[in-house]
Amino acid sequence: MSVTVVGSVALDSVRTPFGEATEALGGSAAYFAVAARHFVPVSIVAVVGEDFPEEHVQLLRDRGVDLSGLETARGRTFRWAGEYGYDLNTRETLRTELNVFADFKPKLGEAHRAARFLFLANIHPELQHDVLEQVPKPEMVLLDTMNYWIERAPKELDKVLRRADVVLVNDEEARQLTKESNLLKAARKILASGPSIAVIKKGEHGCLVHGRDFLFAAPVFPLEDIVDPTGAGDTFAGGFLGYLAASEDPWDEKEIRRAAVYGTVLASFTVESFSLRRLSLATREEIDHRFREIRRIAEVEAAL
Amino acid sequence: MSVTVVGSVALDSVRTPFGEATEALGGSAAYFAVAARHFVPVSIVAVVGEDFPEEHVQLLRDRGVDLSGLETARGRTFRWAGEYGYDLNTRETLRTELNVFADFKPKLGEAHRAARFLFLANIHPELQHDVLEQVPKPEMVLLDTMNYWIERAPKELDKVLRRADVVLVNDEEARQLTKESNLLKAARKILASGPSIAVIKKGEHGCLVHGRDFLFAAPVFPLEDIVDPTGAGDTFAGGFLGYLAASEDPWDEKEIRRAAVYGTVLASFTVESFSLRRLSLATREEIDHRFREIRRIAEVEAAL
Repeated sequence: MSVTVVGSVALDSVRTPFGEATEALGGSAAYFAVAARHFVPVSIVAVVGEDFPEEHVQLLRDRGVDLSGLETARGRTFRWAGEYGYDLNTRETLRTELNVFADFKPKLGEAHRAARFLFLANIHPELQHDVLEQVPKPEMVLLDTMNYWIERAPKELDKVLRRADVVLVNDEEARQLTKESNLLKAARKILASGPSIAVIKKGEHGCLVHGRDFLFAAPVFPLEDIVDPTGAGDTFAGGFLGYLAASEDPWDEKEIRRAAVYGTVLASFTVESFSLRRLSLATREEIDHRFREIRRIAEVEAAL
Repeated sequence: MSVTVVGSVALDSVRTPFGEATEALGGSAAYFAVAARHFVPVSIVAVVGEDFPEEHVQLLRDRGVDLSGLETARGRTFRWAGEYGYDLNTRETLRTELNVFADFKPKLGEAHRAARFLFLANIHPELQHDVLEQVPKPEMVLLDTMNYWIERAPKELDKVLRRADVVLVNDEEARQLTKESNLLKAARKILASGPSIAVIKKGEHGCLVHGRDFLFAAPVFPLEDIVDPTGAGDTFAGGFLGYLAASEDPWDEKEIRRAAVYGTVLASFTVESFSLRRLSLATREEIDHRFREIRRIAEVEAAL
């Protein structure tokens, strides 16, 4: 099975206490694709401007990412600039230039319409809904969103939430979306609104995967040096959905647990460096090694 | 093996968004003992005042806690009053009345000196050190502390830290103690200063158990309604050390993992109600049920 992601490809400028990167390759679709491609073929549906550096296109192409859905529009590429505080838990957006992304109306070609596994990255819920209208029979739709849309487009978000299979939010977003401070209650409310699975990301504390009849808590891979958390969530999505798209039984609880760990593993490479520098170098061997490490870290005891 | 705890027995007044309790049974030694007694005999070394209600003594006695080391001094019992914010993650101390606790100089009797498993609850590190001087050959010393002592008595704390086997701190305290914002680095620094194990509590995110050659991440037991987090850390300590004191091989990594889960399980009862109301009613059957639930929540897959 192949995976299609609809999202952004961007130029990010990021400053952290450990250094900075200027106009580096970023965007939800880029992180997602470079993670998911370890498991299945991936197609990106996104837009860049005429100024988008060829080397970035080359990096994605070299990793086997299908770019037939990456449109080049007249104008400048979407740019984001942000700065992280000392403990990397607080982020300030310094600048957002939508540029060509402002007029992005995702139009899926024949191949993308046939997508069985679809990641709707963090864009306007109205656009996410438009994409769903173009894909007749997805097997699994993974939906990301953020506070911005929860506040500004709740109705549109609700419409797309009903049609998503898996929702991916962080703990704050889960609370804001459901008006429940208890995460267990928040997750149950999300499941009651449609999706079968709610994945709640908790940064350095790992993630919680809430299914209709199970709960799974995945710890993160332990790192002494975290350089830049940008893109970790989208990378998680790539590992998660990529693994499931390659599975013979993607709705099996065991597979979903493994998928969440693969998501966590891929994200651990992303945060080790700026942009996709470390992620793009990760090998399947390294990935599987970290998977086994996390399994060991989480092990209470061999189940009876 | 039996366990001895040196700490406080107090009257707590707590207000949370879900209700309040006035002059209820509290104190680190009380929570610890009522948790640990599920596994082994427990002795409390602490002091109360003449006003300490007989019903509280009875509650502890009914649960088989040895109170031969609970001194009744002239004066009033130690009182603490606090209030929790909306999400229960922020706590404000409204009042601390040390009363008889101000002159507490733990003196261990013959039986307590023979203690093989010792919990040094959160008191002045100088007193913790005095206790260690009185116990010739402990098998395992579990040490708790807090920001207050990290700031005000760093030298004394360092002295007792060197002689502790297991250190129990929350994530903030670990960072403050080691001046490392990364928890993995913080834990390694703690281990480098003497202890074999550093347990880092992360509230609703569970805990990390760092050994010299392993790392274990335990999730919490999921609860929809958390009423009052007071005492959760001491209850964790009771489940943890109690389980290990009953073990034939308390230094075995597998046993330490199980002990951390039992600690988490016991703490889950404490937070369900004010004071020791829910904890004191927990049955071994309920405890083992929650243990199995957490094992299920943490399970990545059966190890190969």
